[in-house]
Amino acid sequence: MNLFSRLIFGEVGEAIDGFAWLSGAASRLVVNQAVTTTRNRPHPWSTYAPYVTWDGLTDRTYLARHLPAAEVPVQPDPAQVRRLFQRPAGQGRMSSKSTCLFPAFAQYLTDGFLRTDLTDRRKTTSNHEIDLCPLYGRTRAQTNALRLKSEAAGQRGLLKSQMIGAEEFPPFLYAADGSLADPAFAALDPPLVSPTLEPAKKAVLFAHGGDRANSTPFTSMMNTLFLREHNRIARHLNASRPTWDDERVFQTARNIVIPLFIKIVVEHYINHITPLPFSLRAEPGVAWDASWNRPNWMTVEFSLIYRWHSLLPDQVRWPGWGAGAIALPDFRQDNRPLISVGLDAAFSLAAAQPAAELGAFNTGDDLLPIEDLAVLQARSNKVDTYNAYRVAFGLDRATTFSEISSNPDVVNLLQDLYGEPDNVEFYPGLFAEDRTKDSPLPGLLMRMVAVDAFSQALTNPLLSEHVFNADTFTPWGLELILSTSKLGDILARNVPLRGATPIEMTQAGWRYGEE
Amino acid sequence: MNLFSRLIFGEVGEAIDGFAWLSGAASRLVVNQAVTTTRNRPHPWSTYAPYVTWDGLTDRTYLARHLPAAEVPVQPDPAQVRRLFQRPAGQGRMSSKSTCLFPAFAQYLTDGFLRTDLTDRRKTTSNHEIDLCPLYGRTRAQTNALRLKSEAAGQRGLLKSQMIGAEEFPPFLYAADGSLADPAFAALDPPLVSPTLEPAKKAVLFAHGGDRANSTPFTSMMNTLFLREHNRIARHLNASRPTWDDERVFQTARNIVIPLFIKIVVEHYINHITPLPFSLRAEPGVAWDASWNRPNWMTVEFSLIYRWHSLLPDQVRWPGWGAGAIALPDFRQDNRPLISVGLDAAFSLAAAQPAAELGAFNTGDDLLPIEDLAVLQARSNKVDTYNAYRVAFGLDRATTFSEISSNPDVVNLLQDLYGEPDNVEFYPGLFAEDRTKDSPLPGLLMRMVAVDAFSQALTNPLLSEHVFNADTFTPWGLELILSTSKLGDILARNVPLRGATPIEMTQAGWRYGEE
Repeated sequence: MNLFSRLIFGEVGEAIDGFAWLSGAASRLVVNQAVTTTRNRPHPWSTYAPYVTWDGLTDRTYLARHLPAAEVPVQPDPAQVRRLFQRPAGQGRMSSKSTCLFPAFAQYLTDGFLRTDLTDRRKTTSNHEIDLCPLYGRTRAQTNALRLKSEAAGQRGLLKSQMIGAEEFPPFLYAADGSLADPAFAALDPPLVSPTLEPAKKAVLFAHGGDRANSTPFTSMMNTLFLREHNRIARHLNASRPTWDDERVFQTARNIVIPLFIKIVVEHYINHITPLPFSLRAEPGVAWDASWNRPNWMTVEFSLIYRWHSLLPDQVRWPGWGAGAIALPDFRQDNRPLISVGLDAAFSLAAAQPAAELGAFNTGDDLLPIEDLAVLQARSNKVDTYNAYRVAFGLDRATTFSEISSNPDVVNLLQDLYGEPDNVEFYPGLFAEDRTKDSPLPGLLMRMVAVDAFSQALTNPLLSEHVFNADTFTPWGLELILSTSKLGDILARNVPLRGATPIEMTQAGWRYGEE
Repeated sequence: MNLFSRLIFGEVGEAIDGFAWLSGAASRLVVNQAVTTTRNRPHPWSTYAPYVTWDGLTDRTYLARHLPAAEVPVQPDPAQVRRLFQRPAGQGRMSSKSTCLFPAFAQYLTDGFLRTDLTDRRKTTSNHEIDLCPLYGRTRAQTNALRLKSEAAGQRGLLKSQMIGAEEFPPFLYAADGSLADPAFAALDPPLVSPTLEPAKKAVLFAHGGDRANSTPFTSMMNTLFLREHNRIARHLNASRPTWDDERVFQTARNIVIPLFIKIVVEHYINHITPLPFSLRAEPGVAWDASWNRPNWMTVEFSLIYRWHSLLPDQVRWPGWGAGAIALPDFRQDNRPLISVGLDAAFSLAAAQPAAELGAFNTGDDLLPIEDLAVLQARSNKVDTYNAYRVAFGLDRATTFSEISSNPDVVNLLQDLYGEPDNVEFYPGLFAEDRTKDSPLPGLLMRMVAVDAFSQALTNPLLSEHVFNADTFTPWGLELILSTSKLGDILARNVPLRGATPIEMTQAGWRYGEE
């Protein structure tokens, strides 16, 4: 068992408890050991064919696979499997560690690269990189539609935006008559919202780069933050580089914002997930000579493990709305709560209330149909059993149901559905597991998230050996990247008076080792 | 100076002279040191913009660059630079090392991935991989057009072909009336031949996967060899895997043929180029943990260094044609010489006559306009000076013209054109240099070819750690790959009675260290 595993399972945690951070060399060791719990890329298999093909090795519109295609032996009716997910009315379990900032960031992050093609679930519209496409669009045509493209001093390199009161937001997508507010927006992917969305909600949909960024006030909040940061950086470059044209300012601002985002991914988000008593650093050099530094390629498994519907509570506390809270169904596809309180207050609200707990029996009713789709997607893409993935990621097979969960209701239901631990399907198995101590995630899921997060975030071309430097970012931009670790760092630069509420994914008062 | 340099420059050559081969570990050392003479990928720059951009780091329709864009200080009229290339009538220098099999293979190989977009010379239509697209096409639609797609026993997985007498060739592209012989061929890139090509030549153009594979009887010969090998392997799989359908047989045959081709690239072609007294092995493991194993990306420089026009002699000896020889202009875009003698005799002819020598004053008249285009392409793509590339690839700057060439005519002409060694342009400088002892190539060119050849051939996904195995190739296919080193190995399997002429890129009787 390597250091990463031993740390996660608490075997050496006590020896280094008390250290608040890890040096670069120690971070490097942990990252390398986390990633090497499984086979590195290129993956031999993809959803193109159930055997190795040149198409499968090169056509990135198909999903790669960690394990080869397999027909699982027991496939219960999804309506039965749903019992494992369903949150009993009024009995949602809240997380002891995570605030709502955690699911908010997780959704915004993963909507950028986990992009199953809904017309053919073997395929993907992903660019396979953390490229902030929810902000910038997936294609050059989309990016161009979102850019102001002005050569006026002070306006070079900006993304289109609007002021609502004193606050900068993305422009609205639709005009009052329901047509596109800007003909250029025809290049964008249409937002994935209800076809019967009420007019008052449709009127305030933003022209985001990503089709899912209007999902909730939290995802719009994230995108608004990074839009402001992009434009703030561009305005700085307008002043400091007066000879640069719109194109160069835009490109350089984007060069800076993508690594800033990756810093947040590792130093804020991954640190929140990992049950370690110290903080990992996003040190690009970790990947420069790593054998796992291979082209990113989203997998069929990765497109399933991030369906963290149970993190969302039944209602979100929101002053000034109803009785001060918004029921989950009403929270979706509505930017009015965000606009009403503004960016600073929205972040404070997300960070001031607990998320629900990830795991069995904790998915809200209106999200249950999506759990059914996940179960079916795993089967249609021939994803192997839960135990097969435990072994592939360096864990022992579960030989009894109680090795999966300590909850007798979960054990009984798994027994009922699958008969034998070896028959448990991948997706239900992931979420049936007990959470890892000190992490918001169960063990196999945490391992798989860590492998893919490190090995895909740190291999970004902007972090590569001959690109991550002051020529690419300007010296000011490089310093900005190096000195940013948390969402609160970016928020403070983009709101006039940061309130007192801490902007954390981890709840105030939560302490390592206590539960 | 690293081992590779010391070997090349003869410093340790004598110590190991007498060994005919190197162990895997020693090959690994030489390959690693060859590749690490310069910066590894990803390259910061591309032809997209003269500074780092996300588009430049991700849009593979642009060429990458080893060095940033630079305006060279002295840009003589190409008609003057042409004097450096022009072969005096009747005074062509012949190579002491290479047979015509060397330029034949070099052209066929490089036409597969050095594919400048002729409508925009900043761009490329390359897949950036050694994927044998001259045989299989660049796109899935082209591959489908070339496949027989029959489920009949014995025909599964075949490429379309025709028998001419007892010999298998690709099908002809055009019917007798000048229309496409097969409507599916509309998906192919039209062959890059003269618009006024005479009807007798047009009638025998082959439906190759690559638009340049009809360039000469030698390129058609290469493609015919690999077509026969593909179909031979597919027929074997028809017999040994009777339950496999057309798709699986085709895919598996291609899985085998691409690594076979890469074996020839390293163990036949690169060994011919390298002035080492032993043979390098194409051992896939060399790349598995190498820091230079990064996604392939053709560079603007690589698209220039392979213009080896001077390798072609003024005429090619060919029994039964004219006075037993074909003048170079008549040798182009005509498959009749190949068809008339057959595949075995064509290979024997290529291997039985010397190539011309690569270098100054040795390009045939009808190829001189292409040299002009190369000079201009280097300028329009802002390729830096010859000395800048010497430094970038670990060599010292040339401070006198005589450090570039020992030929007083070359020295005088460079002085006349450029005034100072620092002003010499990249493309003329490459070919002005003296050849390296025991290599057909000059020093900087050899270094650049080695870096790109090793670092792009050995990183092929079919050679990767979890793909290069019997599951991908079948045990029979893996053994075939491992036991193949030379073009003659493949030829012998695909002609009825191999003649006595050795099929070598190196002239019979040439010996290491003798010149």
